[in-house]
Amino acid sequence: MFPFVAPVRDLRFVLEELLEHRSLALPGFEEASPDLVEAVLEEAARLAGEVWGPLNASGDQQGCTRRSDGGVTLPDGFIEAYQAYAEGGWNGIGVSEALGGQGLPEVVASSVQEMLHGANMALGLCPMLTAGAIEALAHHGSDALKASYLPKLVEGSWTGTMNLTEPQAGSDLSKVRTRAVPCPDEEGDHFRLFGQKIFITWGEHDAAENIVHLVLARKPDAPEGNKGISLFLVPKFLVNADGSLGERNDVTCASIEHKLGIHGSPTCTLSFGDGDGAIGYLVGEEGRGLNHMFTMMNEARHKVGIQGIGVAERACQHAFAYALDRVQGKVRGREATISEHLDVRRMLLSMRARTDALRALALYCAAQLDVARHGGDGEREVAQARADVLIPVVKAFSTDQAVDIASMGVQVHGGMGFIEETGAAQLLRDARIAPIYEGTNGIQALDLAGRKLQRDGGAALAGLIEEVEATASELREDGELAALGESLAAGAADLEAAMQRVLEQGSDSELGPDAIQAYATPFLSLAGHVLCAWQMGRAALKARAAQAAGSNEPFYQAKLAAADFALRQWLPVGRANRSVIEAGMACLADYEVTLP
Amino acid sequence: MFPFVAPVRDLRFVLEELLEHRSLALPGFEEASPDLVEAVLEEAARLAGEVWGPLNASGDQQGCTRRSDGGVTLPDGFIEAYQAYAEGGWNGIGVSEALGGQGLPEVVASSVQEMLHGANMALGLCPMLTAGAIEALAHHGSDALKASYLPKLVEGSWTGTMNLTEPQAGSDLSKVRTRAVPCPDEEGDHFRLFGQKIFITWGEHDAAENIVHLVLARKPDAPEGNKGISLFLVPKFLVNADGSLGERNDVTCASIEHKLGIHGSPTCTLSFGDGDGAIGYLVGEEGRGLNHMFTMMNEARHKVGIQGIGVAERACQHAFAYALDRVQGKVRGREATISEHLDVRRMLLSMRARTDALRALALYCAAQLDVARHGGDGEREVAQARADVLIPVVKAFSTDQAVDIASMGVQVHGGMGFIEETGAAQLLRDARIAPIYEGTNGIQALDLAGRKLQRDGGAALAGLIEEVEATASELREDGELAALGESLAAGAADLEAAMQRVLEQGSDSELGPDAIQAYATPFLSLAGHVLCAWQMGRAALKARAAQAAGSNEPFYQAKLAAADFALRQWLPVGRANRSVIEAGMACLADYEVTLP
Repeated sequence: MFPFVAPVRDLRFVLEELLEHRSLALPGFEEASPDLVEAVLEEAARLAGEVWGPLNASGDQQGCTRRSDGGVTLPDGFIEAYQAYAEGGWNGIGVSEALGGQGLPEVVASSVQEMLHGANMALGLCPMLTAGAIEALAHHGSDALKASYLPKLVEGSWTGTMNLTEPQAGSDLSKVRTRAVPCPDEEGDHFRLFGQKIFITWGEHDAAENIVHLVLARKPDAPEGNKGISLFLVPKFLVNADGSLGERNDVTCASIEHKLGIHGSPTCTLSFGDGDGAIGYLVGEEGRGLNHMFTMMNEARHKVGIQGIGVAERACQHAFAYALDRVQGKVRGREATISEHLDVRRMLLSMRARTDALRALALYCAAQLDVARHGGDGEREVAQARADVLIPVVKAFSTDQAVDIASMGVQVHGGMGFIEETGAAQLLRDARIAPIYEGTNGIQALDLAGRKLQRDGGAALAGLIEEVEATASELREDGELAALGESLAAGAADLEAAMQRVLEQGSDSELGPDAIQAYATPFLSLAGHVLCAWQMGRAALKARAAQAAGSNEPFYQAKLAAADFALRQWLPVGRANRSVIEAGMACLADYEVTLP
Repeated sequence: MFPFVAPVRDLRFVLEELLEHRSLALPGFEEASPDLVEAVLEEAARLAGEVWGPLNASGDQQGCTRRSDGGVTLPDGFIEAYQAYAEGGWNGIGVSEALGGQGLPEVVASSVQEMLHGANMALGLCPMLTAGAIEALAHHGSDALKASYLPKLVEGSWTGTMNLTEPQAGSDLSKVRTRAVPCPDEEGDHFRLFGQKIFITWGEHDAAENIVHLVLARKPDAPEGNKGISLFLVPKFLVNADGSLGERNDVTCASIEHKLGIHGSPTCTLSFGDGDGAIGYLVGEEGRGLNHMFTMMNEARHKVGIQGIGVAERACQHAFAYALDRVQGKVRGREATISEHLDVRRMLLSMRARTDALRALALYCAAQLDVARHGGDGEREVAQARADVLIPVVKAFSTDQAVDIASMGVQVHGGMGFIEETGAAQLLRDARIAPIYEGTNGIQALDLAGRKLQRDGGAALAGLIEEVEATASELREDGELAALGESLAAGAADLEAAMQRVLEQGSDSELGPDAIQAYATPFLSLAGHVLCAWQMGRAALKARAAQAAGSNEPFYQAKLAAADFALRQWLPVGRANRSVIEAGMACLADYEVTLP
């Protein structure tokens, strides 16, 4: 596998030029100067490139093994690499200072996450889950729970997990059956949990002193359905009053999964209460477990989108390196590397343009999250509404595209791409999980086209479309970029029209009241294409400005080529979703799903 | 893994209704009645479903191993499954009676191949390669070589391989270095080969008594480049004058590859001449090895397309079975299997519509091959020209779509799709090779947009477009199907316009004389979408006719839904390639491929 080089130049372009470091001007980020951000990116790039990246292929080959004592052995080097991360203070960079973190803006934290996932997605999952646990605890935990658990989670010496799925409860969590039995008063105010959870990422390992499981379960007297579900904290080791670790709790790793990819990430079946019951503590309100989980899931979904971009970046680099090295055939009469063949160049530019575009959109979304948390009155709400609309797009579109980009990366390698030792295939295998977990991409599409669009009648998305139109106008005014502006304006018009059509779907009689579900995925794809193209239109304007100001850095010329590709080669394919939506999905109405 | 059921009903629909069994009316197929064809399909379905299919998952898990004696151990059951195939006479069904085969039409042979690949793609590769060897020998071998080798290859007791690739010679075979040294006159008229070949499918195994390697190599005095390359036959065991097997030849399996998929198919590095040289016999003319290879490659490409369709069919069945079984969430207030959720139904119908469409196009192409070989004067040439245009489309489009269909199949499974034991992931891993081998899909696109289109100025494709237009008109005349007709007519117009644009590309100055290469892949994608939609338009007309004639078989209703989806949901996405082509690829001109 080619070594991974964190894309610092492009991350800086997005933070400094596209986002104009606006997050740094928000209250609370006074100490985060552009110089500091640059230093953080450089340092993270070193960790990603030198420590995490080299373990990616070996981690895949070795995978994780469950020992006879119920423990899980990670691939060689993973414990040290995780500890280098924790000791470097990376786990807390996006966590507020009040909770013991560095309190850097989300745009910076997201940039660091992308580098780490690009270097080693399987390892990157560990802190990603911990971040979710921190979020849930910080928002909903009692002061006592926060005092006992948060500092260790923030510093990364303990890690966190999310225990949602059970065999009968996947996308539909209302079916959760794990029981949480209140303990007799004399024992204390905790619960004893009994049940089995599956697909628990980093559910068991030796990289941290303790593991803090956040578990959805229901009390014996709880009502059926969503409203009976509460959230519990179940530590692997109980924590004594003085903060030291006590007894092993009654939660064990029953097995680990044999998966298509992310072999270095242990995916566990956890068994709660094989003995007296796993001791757990209620987090937040009884019966509001799902709501509490969803608080944090929005941001977890953004992180999965970022993860897709990390893998896409690595797939780009891998394909570029191979194409620049592999001599085959002739171009203009002389021997050439395959990077000179136009069909291969087309694939490479497609991979690069899409990865850049996804990154710009995901960081734009992160910037909205910064404003939503730190901005002034009025702007906070607007930013949150935009982030709410963007998050399902970032999650689903980035991860779908990442699979396609990784698959194209395999194709660039020709026959070598199919050989595991080359490394391109691993990226495809790893990428394939991201459209599935943290809410399948179908669920993201329903979230966008259903909940997010319906609740404000499309107002937040309409605001974004106006921005797209403004960028299209700017492009049209620039002689060289006018064709990009035409294309982007057409895309904005398509998205606007499709949005109206989707908003009207409640009344589609053929498909019944859930008609909107049939249109959700094509709609999300259209939104993703248009919003990504928008970001690349903005990137083209910035690149032209830099050149006009005298820069002859090849980066800007490459960015203009990528923008041209994104707006004129990639966007048209996405725009076709308008026709798809307008044709209507009546064919689904009486289609009978049967086996031959 | 769910059991595989060969899609006999749909194959019969294509052969009987879409193709109206026209191949059976050709001279040479007098004995192939519709009843016989039906019996053949049923019998092949049994072999596929009962013998080959159950070994698909175990073959993947076990894979192949190279023994210390240089032999290769196949997964359990593969030898018996191959022998059941050979003993059943399946290897010769498409081979002419003159060569010892059954001489059935290509449409029937292709149907059988699809079932077998759907059942077990890794095992299906063995006879696929043998078919190539038969073809090469039958066309170019001397009478003596044919007499010694063809009967055994046709009956399947010996298998064949294609030895093209060397580390420095992949897509560019002019770089082949394997040497073929003529033996002194007293030894005979054979050669001794020295060199190494990689990626040799089924290069070594114990399923057959002998393996017949067809090898590209060059004589010591041969010119550089393509014209110095000749084709040689190198048997694993030498063959005595009486037909019995003699000494082991000097060709050995140096290693086998560790691949993303098709683990049950041994992909070997073969070493020729580690000792005195591997004895080989010239096939055809000296210096025309590449031409001889390409004779057969056209049909091998069709077979790879068929293979993609087989895997796509299995992915459909797998996803359908899971979706019909998995209860999750509610539809209209009651618990439902996920097959009832509209977003999942959309995925299922998309998979089904595309698989049906690809099958219909591939068999239409096979029917053209039948006419090209057996038709009357005049019609043979037209049919061959159509097949020449269709083959790169069938190969590339079917295999690209198969990857996407298998990936969508994983998605339908949710988290279970990522778990290897479920079986959906294997189909994606297996499918991923098909866009790469037998000429990458980029090479197929160049073959279509470059060679095939340029040599007749697009005449053959224009003939097909006229047929598409005729179907569009028929659809428009049917009140219920008018919208499908509109969509298809628009697709035909796009393909016509894009073809003109591609034909003009010779003069595109920005990209130089190879400009056409930049447009080849989007053009092939457009052609694939339009031609597949055409077949589904024809299928809709046939389904309506069957219903009008009183049939209430659910098959026809499902076919109408699939046709609606193909023409109104899938075709628009493909049509976007016209915009892509018309936007021009100037962005590739000065894009500098660099690493970060």
